Amino acid sequence: MLSDRILKAEESPIRKLVPYAEEAKKRGIRIYHLNIGQPDLETPSVFYEYILASRPKVVYYSHSAGLWELREAFAEYYKRRQRVDVSPDHVLVTNGASEAILFAFSIVTNPGDEILALEPFYANYETFARIVGAHLVPVTRREENGFAIPEEREFSKVISSKTKAIVLSNPCNPTGVVYGRRDMEKLLEIAEKHNLYLIVDEVYSEIVFGGDFATALSLDSKRVVVVDSVSKKFSACGARVGCLITKNEEILRNAMKLAQGRLAPPLLEQIGSIGLLNLGDEFFEFVRNTYFRRVKIVCEKLERAGIKSFTRPGGAFYVTVKLPVEDAEEFAKWMLKDFNLEMETTMVAPLRGFYSTPGLGRDEIRIACVLKEEDLARAMDVLLEGLKTWIEVYSST
Amino acid sequence: MLSDRILKAEESPIRKLVPYAEEAKKRGIRIYHLNIGQPDLETPSVFYEYILASRPKVVYYSHSAGLWELREAFAEYYKRRQRVDVSPDHVLVTNGASEAILFAFSIVTNPGDEILALEPFYANYETFARIVGAHLVPVTRREENGFAIPEEREFSKVISSKTKAIVLSNPCNPTGVVYGRRDMEKLLEIAEKHNLYLIVDEVYSEIVFGGDFATALSLDSKRVVVVDSVSKKFSACGARVGCLITKNEEILRNAMKLAQGRLAPPLLEQIGSIGLLNLGDEFFEFVRNTYFRRVKIVCEKLERAGIKSFTRPGGAFYVTVKLPVEDAEEFAKWMLKDFNLEMETTMVAPLRGFYSTPGLGRDEIRIACVLKEEDLARAMDVLLEGLKTWIEVYSST
Repeated sequence: MLSDRILKAEESPIRKLVPYAEEAKKRGIRIYHLNIGQPDLETPSVFYEYILASRPKVVYYSHSAGLWELREAFAEYYKRRQRVDVSPDHVLVTNGASEAILFAFSIVTNPGDEILALEPFYANYETFARIVGAHLVPVTRREENGFAIPEEREFSKVISSKTKAIVLSNPCNPTGVVYGRRDMEKLLEIAEKHNLYLIVDEVYSEIVFGGDFATALSLDSKRVVVVDSVSKKFSACGARVGCLITKNEEILRNAMKLAQGRLAPPLLEQIGSIGLLNLGDEFFEFVRNTYFRRVKIVCEKLERAGIKSFTRPGGAFYVTVKLPVEDAEEFAKWMLKDFNLEMETTMVAPLRGFYSTPGLGRDEIRIACVLKEEDLARAMDVLLEGLKTWIEVYSST
Repeated sequence: MLSDRILKAEESPIRKLVPYAEEAKKRGIRIYHLNIGQPDLETPSVFYEYILASRPKVVYYSHSAGLWELREAFAEYYKRRQRVDVSPDHVLVTNGASEAILFAFSIVTNPGDEILALEPFYANYETFARIVGAHLVPVTRREENGFAIPEEREFSKVISSKTKAIVLSNPCNPTGVVYGRRDMEKLLEIAEKHNLYLIVDEVYSEIVFGGDFATALSLDSKRVVVVDSVSKKFSACGARVGCLITKNEEILRNAMKLAQGRLAPPLLEQIGSIGLLNLGDEFFEFVRNTYFRRVKIVCEKLERAGIKSFTRPGGAFYVTVKLPVEDAEEFAKWMLKDFNLEMETTMVAPLRGFYSTPGLGRDEIRIACVLKEEDLARAMDVLLEGLKTWIEVYSST
C-alpha cells in the first residue's frame, strides 16, 4: 500500500491531457501546443561555448551550493538587472527552481504545517508540499479585479498557528500579472504581522512588459526567500539550473544540509549557465519584445472574438482566460478528441488544477505564448473556431 | 523559526570536516582526500561525444521520466550486464540516485512512518527521510561478522505498524560488503512477512571483485525498488543522472506524479549518459580492476600496520575500519588540524554519522579508494603514521 500523500496527489493538470494529444497525432492531426511553458526560442550558443571551453575531464561533483563562478554570476546578474545587492554567499544553486521550492518548503514547515498559496498558483507547488507533508491553503485572487493581491483580512481568515509561509510567483504563472513595490511591501507587512516567511518564485522576472516589477529581494528582509532559474529567461528549461536566494543566514545554513544530502546540481549545465547570466541587456530586450508581441496577438484575437473576461498580462508569457463554457477541461479535451480545423487543433491548459478551492477555475484556461507569431495566430484562430463550435453544440442540446 | 526537521538535521558527516581541511590547505599542507566518493577516473569521452553530436538548439524539458533513448539504454544495460529483463517503462530517470531515493521514500511513507535502514548506512538517507517526514530505524550490521544481513528477529524487534520499507546499498557504502542471491532472498522474505517495500541502492553494482552480487531486480518482486546512477560506475558524479527501477506499475505511475512536479532531469547529461551506458564490457573490467588494486593496497597497508579490525571489501571502493582510538572523529579532525608528515596529511570520513544508534561507529572510519595507486599508498602511510602518533600522544597522557 502506497502513501496517502502520493495516492491523493493529482496528475499535473498541464500534462494530464497528453494521452489525448498523442491519440490526435496518431490520427494525423497537427497540434499547436499552447499548454506548456516550453519556449521555442533557441538557447543562446554561449551556453555550449562555456561548456566546451571548460569540458572537465572528470565530470565531478560541484560544491553542493553550486559552482562559485555561477553563484558569482547570479549575484552579478541581480546587481545589474534587478538593482539589488546580492552576495554569492546568498545564492544556493539548485536543480531548477523546482528544487529551490522543495528546499524552502522543507525548511519552513514541519509535516502538517500550512503554506498560504495565492491562487491560481503554479500547480506543482502542490507536489512539493505533498513531498514534505505540508498543506497549501489557498488565498484567492480573482480575474474580475485583475488578480490583485487580496486584502490582509483575506489572509487572516485562514492563518493559524500552523501557517508558516506565503508562496507566489511574480510575474505570475498562470495569470501573467506583475506585482510591484507596493504589492511586495503589502505582502511583507502581512508576513511580519503573522510571523510568516515570504517565498517568491521570480523565474519570469526578465519577461516584464513595462510597468512596475519589484523583486522581493529589494525588500531586504530576512523573511524573504526568492526562487529563480535560467529556464524561462534564457530558454534553457532542460538545463535544470535554478537557485534559492535569501539574505537569511539561518535559512542558507540549513538549506546547505539539504544541498549536501543530494550532493550537487548538474555540472555541465552549471558551467553553461555562467555564460547565460553574462549575456548583455540586448538579449533580455529581445526576449521581452518577442513575448510582448506574442501576448499582444493572443489578447487581440480574444478581443476580436468578443472575449473580454481576461486580464492583459504585464509579464511572463501566459494569458489566463475565463471562457463562456461550463467545464474548460472538458472543452480542452474535446479540442483534442473531437475537433480539428483542416486537420489542426490547439492544446491549452485547463486552470482548475491551478486552484485548490473546489470549483474555482473550472471555466478558465491558460494559454502559453510559446510559438512564433504566425503559428500562434493560427493556433488562436483554431482555438476560437473550436470554441464557437463547442458553444453551438452545447447551446443546441 | 525554521522547522524542527531541518534544525535537527546533522551536517553531512562526510563534509563537516571540510573547514579544517581548508584551514590546513591555507597552511600549505597537501591533503589526500580519502573522505569522499569522488573518483579521479576520467569520464569516458563518449559522454561528450554524444552531447556534441546531438547539441539541441533549444535546451528543452525532456519527458519527465527521462529521454526514451536513455530509458532504453538503462534497460539494455540491465539485460546485458545484470542479466535481468527490464523494460524502458520500468525505468524512471532521476537527478542522480539521490532523487530516486527521495521519490521512493515519499511514495512508500506518510509523515511519521518508519523505514528500516541497515546500519552503517549511506548517511544521506537520513536527509531524504527528514524531507519527507519519515524516520529511519536502524538494524545494525557488525564488523565482527563481516557486516552480514542480520537475522529476521533483529528486524521483528523494531518493526511496527509504521514500518513501510527496508533500505540498503549493495555493494554497500560504507563497508564495501557485497550481498548475493541468498542475502537478497532473505531480505525479500522479511519484506514479505512484514509487508514492506525493499529499496536497494545499487550505484556500485559494477564495482564487484568476484564473488556473488545479485541485483534486487533478479528477485522479480513488486516489493522491490532499485536505485541506480551513472555517477560511480562511469565516474560521472557531476552528471546527476540516476534512475528508479521497479516492476511495480503502481509505484511507477505514482512516481510519475513526482517526476512531473519537478518537470525533468538535466538534458545534456541525459544525452551523454546514453553513450556511457553503451560502453563495452572492457570498460567495466578496467574500472573493476582499477578499484580492486586500490582496495588491495589499502587493506595491505592496514594489515602491515597490525590493524585487523576491518572487513576486506568485496566491492565498491570503500574500506570501513575500526581504529584503536576512542573517537575517530576527533582523530580525523586532529589529522587536519595538528598533524602533518612532510607537509602532507590524509582526510578520512568518521563513521559515526553512518549509524543512527547512539554510540555506534565512534571508533570507525571510511576510507575511499579514489586516488591513483602511488598517491593512495602514500596517503595510507601518512594516515597510519598519524595514527601511531595519536596513540602515543594519548597513551602517554
